[in-house]
Amino acid sequence: MKIQNDILLRTLRGELCERPPVWLMRQAGRILPQYRSVRASLSGFKELVTTPTLAAEVTIQPVDELGVDAAILFSDILVIPEAMGLDYEMIEKKGPSFPKVIQTAADIEALSFGKPAADQLTYVYDAIAETKKGLSGRVPLIGFAGAPWTLLAYMVEGGGSKTFSKARRLLYADPALAHKALDKITTTIIAYLQNKVEAGVDAIQVFDSWAGVLSADLYREFCIPYLKRICEAITDVPVIIFAKDAWFAFDELARLPANALGMDWTMEPSWARSIAGPDKVLQGNLDPCTLYADAKTIEAETWKMIRSFGQHHIANLGHGVYPDTPLDGVKTFVNTVKAFRYQEVA
Amino acid sequence: MKIQNDILLRTLRGELCERPPVWLMRQAGRILPQYRSVRASLSGFKELVTTPTLAAEVTIQPVDELGVDAAILFSDILVIPEAMGLDYEMIEKKGPSFPKVIQTAADIEALSFGKPAADQLTYVYDAIAETKKGLSGRVPLIGFAGAPWTLLAYMVEGGGSKTFSKARRLLYADPALAHKALDKITTTIIAYLQNKVEAGVDAIQVFDSWAGVLSADLYREFCIPYLKRICEAITDVPVIIFAKDAWFAFDELARLPANALGMDWTMEPSWARSIAGPDKVLQGNLDPCTLYADAKTIEAETWKMIRSFGQHHIANLGHGVYPDTPLDGVKTFVNTVKAFRYQEVA
Repeated sequence: MKIQNDILLRTLRGELCERPPVWLMRQAGRILPQYRSVRASLSGFKELVTTPTLAAEVTIQPVDELGVDAAILFSDILVIPEAMGLDYEMIEKKGPSFPKVIQTAADIEALSFGKPAADQLTYVYDAIAETKKGLSGRVPLIGFAGAPWTLLAYMVEGGGSKTFSKARRLLYADPALAHKALDKITTTIIAYLQNKVEAGVDAIQVFDSWAGVLSADLYREFCIPYLKRICEAITDVPVIIFAKDAWFAFDELARLPANALGMDWTMEPSWARSIAGPDKVLQGNLDPCTLYADAKTIEAETWKMIRSFGQHHIANLGHGVYPDTPLDGVKTFVNTVKAFRYQEVA
Repeated sequence: MKIQNDILLRTLRGELCERPPVWLMRQAGRILPQYRSVRASLSGFKELVTTPTLAAEVTIQPVDELGVDAAILFSDILVIPEAMGLDYEMIEKKGPSFPKVIQTAADIEALSFGKPAADQLTYVYDAIAETKKGLSGRVPLIGFAGAPWTLLAYMVEGGGSKTFSKARRLLYADPALAHKALDKITTTIIAYLQNKVEAGVDAIQVFDSWAGVLSADLYREFCIPYLKRICEAITDVPVIIFAKDAWFAFDELARLPANALGMDWTMEPSWARSIAGPDKVLQGNLDPCTLYADAKTIEAETWKMIRSFGQHHIANLGHGVYPDTPLDGVKTFVNTVKAFRYQEVA
């Protein structure tokens, strides 16, 4: 099916467009009253993730309500650890928790992986089919996965953490074992993303959410090679890599065969351009807290961001939108980007 | 009293020394069996902070047990918010919690500040006098304070947070009010640090622990000017500024009139030297997780760090030592630094 609003895909292909496309990380979520009302009727977050009609419904909500240039499938990065054999619970106001974690060579040996593991996640592929039907080609659909290190971090730590020190400890204490786990996780991610592409997603984003707890040396050894494998394996749709807080590896990330790089709000556009060059597609990076301010401030900050990046830019926040962000602030951001035209600054 | 081992102070004065001095952030704490035994007999963390003889005892323990080149007073950055009128509790395994927070202009108006607020913290100054007596000049004593932004972040947020989005929201939504609060906090920090110097500390470290949640623009506006005021006000002893994760402001931090800059482990020594120059005293920055590895790995990583920084360097971790770090790992780190001599790499 032809995509009617294809500004995101054109930008990702490196074309010069009239304005930056715009979407928000976590746009399908608590910022929308429609989402909160679906969510209130359910037993929990995982029911929403695993029920294709509901996942599709909340995925489409921000396209209707906000007019963003892309949908991103409502899901969770932790479905992969689960498919590999580590079930998790999502605890309200606390986050994910894994009753079983990986610690030993035997634990890693016991993991399912690759296509057999990925093929179990039928509810994800069904949700993609549902969503594509519901979107009827209005905007492209982004699918996503967690990066290998970020998934390993949860699988070793057993939940969120400020430091992920148990997971980082493994990298120093038993690097060979860490590589074995990362290899299995990567193989599974690739099979999962290939299934997603087959099910209909138009682009992929890989989230390395816990990149920032690593040193540059560790990132080079335990992350970059696996991200490279993913980029090389996904050839039919564009790939965006978002390694949050990995400023120290930005040059290496920029050399990956990815179509675009996500940026958090600590990275200044001029700094990123000086490393990645004027033609690299960069995505981000307004501070999510900007959207708490008044409309005038949001407009000014959005314009400043767009002008600083120049073309080859996808407008987004530097992180997921915070759940308590006023809907008006979100709309001001989206509408400001959509009203912008590059020739105005020429 | 003359300091016998003054290698830290000589390094902070810009002298070329035979090796880097070494100490660890959180060296007075759970890594030491002596600390755990003192702590087990008490009702809570705050009893230890507010009882001068006990605070002095645990401050001296790592000098005896590890042979570090400096003591750092056992205390908490949140004693200042408390002196300003916001009591806090320290909840086991959870962290600090403020029953009352600042939200409005009236809340900020009601805060005590400056010398009258700082003068209330007599237990801190008594602990310094006790510690100096116990050390009998063996090594210098470092006193510390939280940076204005970090203290404001806790005072608005009411506790720890992954994003400190409420505190950051204030910077966008009411910048004038944020500046008013930062001004009061800075005035109090300065009076507090001047009292500490008078009580006997030989050096000061300022911790901007939550620097990394801000954008470069916000850091320039809401942090750098206040840090500058602190540096300019403390003239009798050297000042170390540690702004964790503030890589994006490293050039501005390097231009502050501080004697040394702390670095977290995401910052590579060569990168820091390229910005701060060969003569700036830099402190850090081994990944705390390195100390979980075997002795050979710890030695190799420590040597690599020392050689990469070159002279004008204080060996330390890139963050506080993690409480479950094996004591042997800590000792290997300290002993490796102390055995090093710069001429060996000439």
